Amino acid sequence: MDRARILEDILNPSSIAFFGANNDLMKMGTTQMVNMQLAGYTGKILPIHPRLDTVQGLKAYKSILDIPDDELPDIFFIVLPSKIVPRVLDECGSRGVTKGVVVSAGFREMGATQLKQELMDVVNKHGIAFLGPNCFGFFNNHIKVDSQAELSSINTTWLSAYNPKRGGVSIASQSGTYMSHIFMAGRDFNMKFSKTISLGNEATIDIVDALKYLGEDDHTRVIGLYIEEIKRPEEFVAVARKISTKKPIIAMYVGGTNAGGRAISSHTGSMAGSDEIFNGVAKQVGILRAYTMEDWLVYCHSLDRCPLPKGRKVAILTNAGGPGATMADLAERMELEVPVFSEKLQARLKKGLVPTAQVANVVDLTFELDIAKFYSKLPKDILKSGEIDGLLVYGIFGTSFFHHLESMREDLDFPIDDMEAMMFPLLKRYATYPRKYGIPIIASHLLGPDDNAAAYLQDLGFPVFKTPNQAVKAFWALAEYNRMKKARSN
Amino acid sequence: MDRARILEDILNPSSIAFFGANNDLMKMGTTQMVNMQLAGYTGKILPIHPRLDTVQGLKAYKSILDIPDDELPDIFFIVLPSKIVPRVLDECGSRGVTKGVVVSAGFREMGATQLKQELMDVVNKHGIAFLGPNCFGFFNNHIKVDSQAELSSINTTWLSAYNPKRGGVSIASQSGTYMSHIFMAGRDFNMKFSKTISLGNEATIDIVDALKYLGEDDHTRVIGLYIEEIKRPEEFVAVARKISTKKPIIAMYVGGTNAGGRAISSHTGSMAGSDEIFNGVAKQVGILRAYTMEDWLVYCHSLDRCPLPKGRKVAILTNAGGPGATMADLAERMELEVPVFSEKLQARLKKGLVPTAQVANVVDLTFELDIAKFYSKLPKDILKSGEIDGLLVYGIFGTSFFHHLESMREDLDFPIDDMEAMMFPLLKRYATYPRKYGIPIIASHLLGPDDNAAAYLQDLGFPVFKTPNQAVKAFWALAEYNRMKKARSN
Repeated sequence: MDRARILEDILNPSSIAFFGANNDLMKMGTTQMVNMQLAGYTGKILPIHPRLDTVQGLKAYKSILDIPDDELPDIFFIVLPSKIVPRVLDECGSRGVTKGVVVSAGFREMGATQLKQELMDVVNKHGIAFLGPNCFGFFNNHIKVDSQAELSSINTTWLSAYNPKRGGVSIASQSGTYMSHIFMAGRDFNMKFSKTISLGNEATIDIVDALKYLGEDDHTRVIGLYIEEIKRPEEFVAVARKISTKKPIIAMYVGGTNAGGRAISSHTGSMAGSDEIFNGVAKQVGILRAYTMEDWLVYCHSLDRCPLPKGRKVAILTNAGGPGATMADLAERMELEVPVFSEKLQARLKKGLVPTAQVANVVDLTFELDIAKFYSKLPKDILKSGEIDGLLVYGIFGTSFFHHLESMREDLDFPIDDMEAMMFPLLKRYATYPRKYGIPIIASHLLGPDDNAAAYLQDLGFPVFKTPNQAVKAFWALAEYNRMKKARSN
Repeated sequence: MDRARILEDILNPSSIAFFGANNDLMKMGTTQMVNMQLAGYTGKILPIHPRLDTVQGLKAYKSILDIPDDELPDIFFIVLPSKIVPRVLDECGSRGVTKGVVVSAGFREMGATQLKQELMDVVNKHGIAFLGPNCFGFFNNHIKVDSQAELSSINTTWLSAYNPKRGGVSIASQSGTYMSHIFMAGRDFNMKFSKTISLGNEATIDIVDALKYLGEDDHTRVIGLYIEEIKRPEEFVAVARKISTKKPIIAMYVGGTNAGGRAISSHTGSMAGSDEIFNGVAKQVGILRAYTMEDWLVYCHSLDRCPLPKGRKVAILTNAGGPGATMADLAERMELEVPVFSEKLQARLKKGLVPTAQVANVVDLTFELDIAKFYSKLPKDILKSGEIDGLLVYGIFGTSFFHHLESMREDLDFPIDDMEAMMFPLLKRYATYPRKYGIPIIASHLLGPDDNAAAYLQDLGFPVFKTPNQAVKAFWALAEYNRMKKARSN
């Protein structure tokens, strides 16, 4: 059974049999189905309920056995008490509906061995494969419900409100929170996703299958894994090794410490391996490791948004001394290089800048009103120089600040239209430089998307993080992945 | 000259002579003066302009020499070309206005030795002290403009839009960005400030003076320092040593690496010391060090908001497995303890929870609708047990999510009023537990203040960070400061 292929079917259903929703909005299943509708799913939902005729405005069936052959759904989605799940799955299997999601918990954590055995007997009887049990399901930002349709989205969690923009990051996670709530955590830098998958207790489909699937998925450029345990370590190594030279894999692994391992053991009912073993595996197969959720998301976003650098030399361009110094300091701590520019490049940069400006690298404009220098002349001089592999930038000159002042006092009248007429075209060209010059540019601004220039760049897919430190870490991830990839190719 | 005392006067002016604003909104000085007005400054601003009769609606004087004796301002605020600053300061000094702020840059970075000498001659002639040159000024959230007045705010930077709530964190910074834009960076956890000070090039008032002032300031509970260089290391050590047993000092120091040191050398024109030396000093005098801006703000906020723990043992309470495991993993990496609870405590916690819940520590409720368990019974059981020194919490059950669903579809009608009638009083009591039990509680939620329960707790001053990792780091800062304080007291 090719479970990676099955996963593709599960994430792209044209129709779904939904078990466990009713007309009580305070039921978990109901909320989940309502969210699925609100999140823009354009396929068909067939609610199954033993007594109700309609559920949330949709015609309901008493059982999957009552659905006509030509309306049979692609997948099941089950949010029922664990006790009745085996029976329901048996009915699904008898109708040939053998793929889906089991949200229900309670098969494993409590040592419910008999119930688990019943579940696995049904699974084996019909050749069933599903996400879960004990999971949130999935998010797919690149679903095509039928061959003619536009791309749309499906989000089976409760968090349709926070659906992210379409992008190249996909996540396979052994925690439901880390495949759903992360959309909010990534909002400061407008993080863009393709798919996120909640693996739950992995009764059939596991993290190896998910990795394989995402490795083959055309929309996925970067794979983030949240790992508590790996049940098939050998297969994991083989699959990861194959993928990691094509796509970056960023793993957050929390099962290696005593406290982490104990938490997990409680959480999913199994033991995790040691931290050192995982580190060894990661190095061997080219997985980049993150130790906090913040770093994990920063690395994924960076690798999705940027071309790879050739080496570890960075230029730092700023209009604020503190962030410039902070970036230089952290870059060196992370074993990146901040080379002193050649006399020639320094002379070129110096032209037209105020006397207080610095150009040796860090390049600090200090006070400068001509934004064309910041977004055009200086970056082009630096990118063309051949002296660096990446450009880190702090300071964005949006007009949000002026809009705000105008909103506070009636008589204030800034030339905002003129500024914006100049700014947006400059930003649009600026966002093309990384591809044009084949060199990553990573920006940051403490105001984040509250600054309209930052928000505009982010919308264009250009990476603007919230803090100078994130920008440095983001470049580090590019350089590290590049190093690992090269080492593996030799 | 007691410059710490003078700093108090500068930060609490009843009236300000403003040099460098006019009626062109695109001038830096104008923007800064307009911001000062909009940020709620209730004192008097006296614009000084050689030609204009009014500036931004205020009567202007041709020179400080023209101001009548009984209207002479408390401080000067100068945003003029550097060349004319010595003359203007000389005039201020001749009228006895000897304190203030010099925003203007260009005295030092360019090796403008002659101009600097002129400046220092005037300073010495009149006994003048000021923040700067090359600084943003200051923010004071606890200003009393006259003895009868309510507390109000003054923000001399361009960022009145982001004025934070009133709290106990004060910052002295050798970077203007890190005393102003940080308000935005701290918004996710509703970080609360008393004062922030931009030191600039420290011609007269330096970081030692600022540290001394903040050490003596009643509103300041925690002192954050952004340091590029320390010109008077012996005085710094003496002052820090005295303060650090009374108030935590959290330092971000970036001058110790080669790249950081070079950036700074460019930035303020002086050399910085090595990283190891600073580390040694920090340990010796009880300064907590942060290596990124994120950590710096997290430590400051935590120490402002929480009682100190007695030791390093934490309980972890969550409704989501992933964040629970992540916190346990990071806690152990940071040398905190996550002890297994006693049988007795486990039995007590277990009562009334669903069978899938875990209670050994991590305590994971899994799916649970009764929020009284999360906000009342379980934390109280844990806090009363005597088995831990701190409580880390993930998961907040606000109703924003339901409000959002209702806004999306007309027919949806959740019992939100009932939920909130229960929730807000529970939260209000919950926020009193840290003081009541003398044990810090630190929460996190990936939705941040977008969740109304998180926002409510934050408004009450209760620490709710955005990520589980931040919560762990926040507790680490408490435990570390406590350890250092104890070591110093022995």
